[in-house]
Amino acid sequence: MFHTITIVGAGLIGGSIGLAAKRRGVAKEVRGLGRSAQTLESARRFGAIDAGFLEPALAVMNADLVVVCTPVDRIAAQVLEFAPLCRPGCLLTDAGSTKAKIVAAVEENLSPGVAYVGSHPLAGSEKRGVENSDANLFQDRLTVVTPTSSTDIAALEKTCAFWRALGSGVKLMDPNEHDRALALTSHLPHLVAAALTGLLPKELCDLTATGFRDATRIAAGNPELWSAIFEQNRDPLLVHLRRFEERLDEFRAALENHDDAALRSLLAGAKEARDALGS
Amino acid sequence: MFHTITIVGAGLIGGSIGLAAKRRGVAKEVRGLGRSAQTLESARRFGAIDAGFLEPALAVMNADLVVVCTPVDRIAAQVLEFAPLCRPGCLLTDAGSTKAKIVAAVEENLSPGVAYVGSHPLAGSEKRGVENSDANLFQDRLTVVTPTSSTDIAALEKTCAFWRALGSGVKLMDPNEHDRALALTSHLPHLVAAALTGLLPKELCDLTATGFRDATRIAAGNPELWSAIFEQNRDPLLVHLRRFEERLDEFRAALENHDDAALRSLLAGAKEARDALGS
Repeated sequence: MFHTITIVGAGLIGGSIGLAAKRRGVAKEVRGLGRSAQTLESARRFGAIDAGFLEPALAVMNADLVVVCTPVDRIAAQVLEFAPLCRPGCLLTDAGSTKAKIVAAVEENLSPGVAYVGSHPLAGSEKRGVENSDANLFQDRLTVVTPTSSTDIAALEKTCAFWRALGSGVKLMDPNEHDRALALTSHLPHLVAAALTGLLPKELCDLTATGFRDATRIAAGNPELWSAIFEQNRDPLLVHLRRFEERLDEFRAALENHDDAALRSLLAGAKEARDALGS
Repeated sequence: MFHTITIVGAGLIGGSIGLAAKRRGVAKEVRGLGRSAQTLESARRFGAIDAGFLEPALAVMNADLVVVCTPVDRIAAQVLEFAPLCRPGCLLTDAGSTKAKIVAAVEENLSPGVAYVGSHPLAGSEKRGVENSDANLFQDRLTVVTPTSSTDIAALEKTCAFWRALGSGVKLMDPNEHDRALALTSHLPHLVAAALTGLLPKELCDLTATGFRDATRIAAGNPELWSAIFEQNRDPLLVHLRRFEERLDEFRAALENHDDAALRSLLAGAKEARDALGS
């Protein structure tokens, strides 16, 4: 499908893309571009990349596809930095959890001759690092691909085919629509889990059961990655945070007023929504 | 250890107690008391009880231990109803998620000649019913046992020995202290998960990943059970809900002020607390 893929950032997501691409024969050669020789060597030994590069020009030379898997506050600048080093016809995409700011910043300044299409595979983990990467991370998951009116159709089709080849389904969304949706389905849950976990004093740890642990697992995510995501998607996140607080107010009112019917109704609505999601 | 144990309510918890008690030889005979002949027959076929009873007097006759595993708003009344039917020296306990109101109501009116000690095994599931019960549900978990100044020491020791025999650790706590702690470690997370889940419109279901699913799994719990728990532990829950809302306000302020340092600090504190919990 591709001769050469270059993965920028060989962490959990980049490493999983490399493993999946190699396992599924999506590319003949998978290169890694990073800032640490040690990390790149770990990725190579782990089988996630064939060769590691510290020098962007060498890493992307003659690549057919460049996938930028770095924190969301670095993606746009890196795409714009690497694009002029790529061969004509090269496709660049990313795996960032936010899309609107990244896509807008890239489209404003992209070099001629190459194409960029934004992507967000809805797969991940609170864990980090290539040693936690997984060739099946994208299997039966969904990747949102975010074209705009200026997106090249052939590049869009190639991007979708790439994620499908890794085992993922693909859904097309406008970048802003993506960010509004993910503010609710991913970023708000992270904020809420962090707020909840931060209240737990050490001496109550032994009184937590699976409920608390499941509900707060994502709070173990990396603070730098997540503060960057929150900052990039600040306005939609604030809108959903307000709606969440209003819902908490409804719970509070039901409790304060001993309104058992209202409490049951709120809990029943939540159960119905959660049951619809499946496990 | 016991000749006859009677389990009141053969659902997930009661059924798991029965399975564990039989598997581990904790009782020669495990009886079930319930309101539905069909449910009792399912529990018997599942191996959770040896015999089912609809009539309390028959179910508890000559029992050494009665374990009440019904919703928290029914436990105290049932203990008080069954106690006069029990033989002298019988021990009664329960598996309710709240303790202060139950223990106070029972101690005020308990029949002479029998003993009651409150218990709360910190194990469960969003699932229900004896068909989801598990002989190892209590293995390596913790059961809080809540004696008061009027608790008989021999009864307390027997209660602790019972839970340990099912594989659980045991922690002694004052009933009010238990309720304040569980308001934070169990009841608030449930409320928060329900508030979050209730915001999700059907059309965004496919944009949820493991983060949302883990964070909201408990919201699939039974609305009647949980509204009763909330009502029984209303005041401590409201206190923790206020603290949670104040923490959300800190996140909101950090976002609104683009205060990246504050955001990272909040997220880092949460990560530290979550990492300390383990998986």
